[in-house]
Amino acid sequence: MAEKEEVNLLGTWYSPVVARAKIALRLKSVDYDYFEEDLFGSKSELLLKSNPVHKMVPVLIHNGKTILESLNIVEYIDETWNASGPSILPSHPYDRAQARFWSAYVDDKWFPTFIAATLTTSEDAKVNGMKEVGEGLLLLEDAFASISKGKSFFGGETIGFMDICLGSFLVILKARERLNGDTILDESKTPFLFKWADEFLSDDTVKIVVPEIDKIAKFEAKTQSSDS
Amino acid sequence: MAEKEEVNLLGTWYSPVVARAKIALRLKSVDYDYFEEDLFGSKSELLLKSNPVHKMVPVLIHNGKTILESLNIVEYIDETWNASGPSILPSHPYDRAQARFWSAYVDDKWFPTFIAATLTTSEDAKVNGMKEVGEGLLLLEDAFASISKGKSFFGGETIGFMDICLGSFLVILKARERLNGDTILDESKTPFLFKWADEFLSDDTVKIVVPEIDKIAKFEAKTQSSDS
Repeated sequence: MAEKEEVNLLGTWYSPVVARAKIALRLKSVDYDYFEEDLFGSKSELLLKSNPVHKMVPVLIHNGKTILESLNIVEYIDETWNASGPSILPSHPYDRAQARFWSAYVDDKWFPTFIAATLTTSEDAKVNGMKEVGEGLLLLEDAFASISKGKSFFGGETIGFMDICLGSFLVILKARERLNGDTILDESKTPFLFKWADEFLSDDTVKIVVPEIDKIAKFEAKTQSSDS
Repeated sequence: MAEKEEVNLLGTWYSPVVARAKIALRLKSVDYDYFEEDLFGSKSELLLKSNPVHKMVPVLIHNGKTILESLNIVEYIDETWNASGPSILPSHPYDRAQARFWSAYVDDKWFPTFIAATLTTSEDAKVNGMKEVGEGLLLLEDAFASISKGKSFFGGETIGFMDICLGSFLVILKARERLNGDTILDESKTPFLFKWADEFLSDDTVKIVVPEIDKIAKFEAKTQSSDS
């Protein structure tokens, strides 16, 4: 790589998808400047200019070039700083395809179902939605068992693409559990995932990067009450 | 690669996303067996077993291993038969990130807007939806101009990831134009894309694989009338 790298990350402290970029950058020991965006107030000129299509975070700007969308950013970081730190995506095409498939499932289906179930005011929709979330966790439990092959993470001994994808949502899950006093990630139903979640959140790289559960719970409570 | 390869593709003849897998397999000169699914009737046991989460095509089965989701399949084919044929994804991480970003835009935003605008019975929703589709094409025109750098395709001299992604929808676009007598891909507004579409559809690899526009138009007319 060139000697003088300029790496900027635009994000918000509470965004799970921004945490993905932060985790990947730390895994690869990349120094970067971080810019906090105010999505509830006015978005920065830099954000609007860098991401005119979606106007969302995270945005990674590397030597003046813009990379958008969290998993795309994670792949870019993995490929660009490939000689530094562990590989984030597995090396075999089939394992890579598995990681990408389950990540797409989490982002396109499972997490949107969870968010919809949390935000709906209909009690029926909430119950049905959370049932679907639970069924999704059973699928992810099976996937974890088959992909991790007895190791701590989806990625094996170290955290990888799918760990970052699903793991980035754990703080929100745990915050909702605290707020509502219920259990979403149930040790008796998904023992592998339950253990994985503990390992992920206590990983040195992750711990420094993801916000505290209590801080997110307070933020969620405030956001929820201002929604209604 | 191993000498004896078993490659099976499950699809439907009219599916644009199945065409993606077919184009990628042809680009890499991979021999495969094709199994036509009847999604309107009963799905095959093999499909239900291979894709229990979404139960959708395309499904690629390579030496007994299942790969799901069209763009994921295209990446898998590119990585697995990397020594055969042209690279489908560009080699530089930034170019790869661009291809992935615009492909996600097409799949997650632009094409769903197009489908919703086509299927809605509200005239207002149709007009607004098609306006959004047109604005999306302007974005894609700019992206094409900046990515292709004067070459025929997003991928440069040969068709690549983003060509396959957007190009797979061209037959449906052209079929709708014939059915409704309107112009979606307008030469005066998006001259680069207009020329690209012609080049893509007359490419030797693509021509053999994608269905004829008239056949799709008849199929669409039948499906639309049975919907209402």
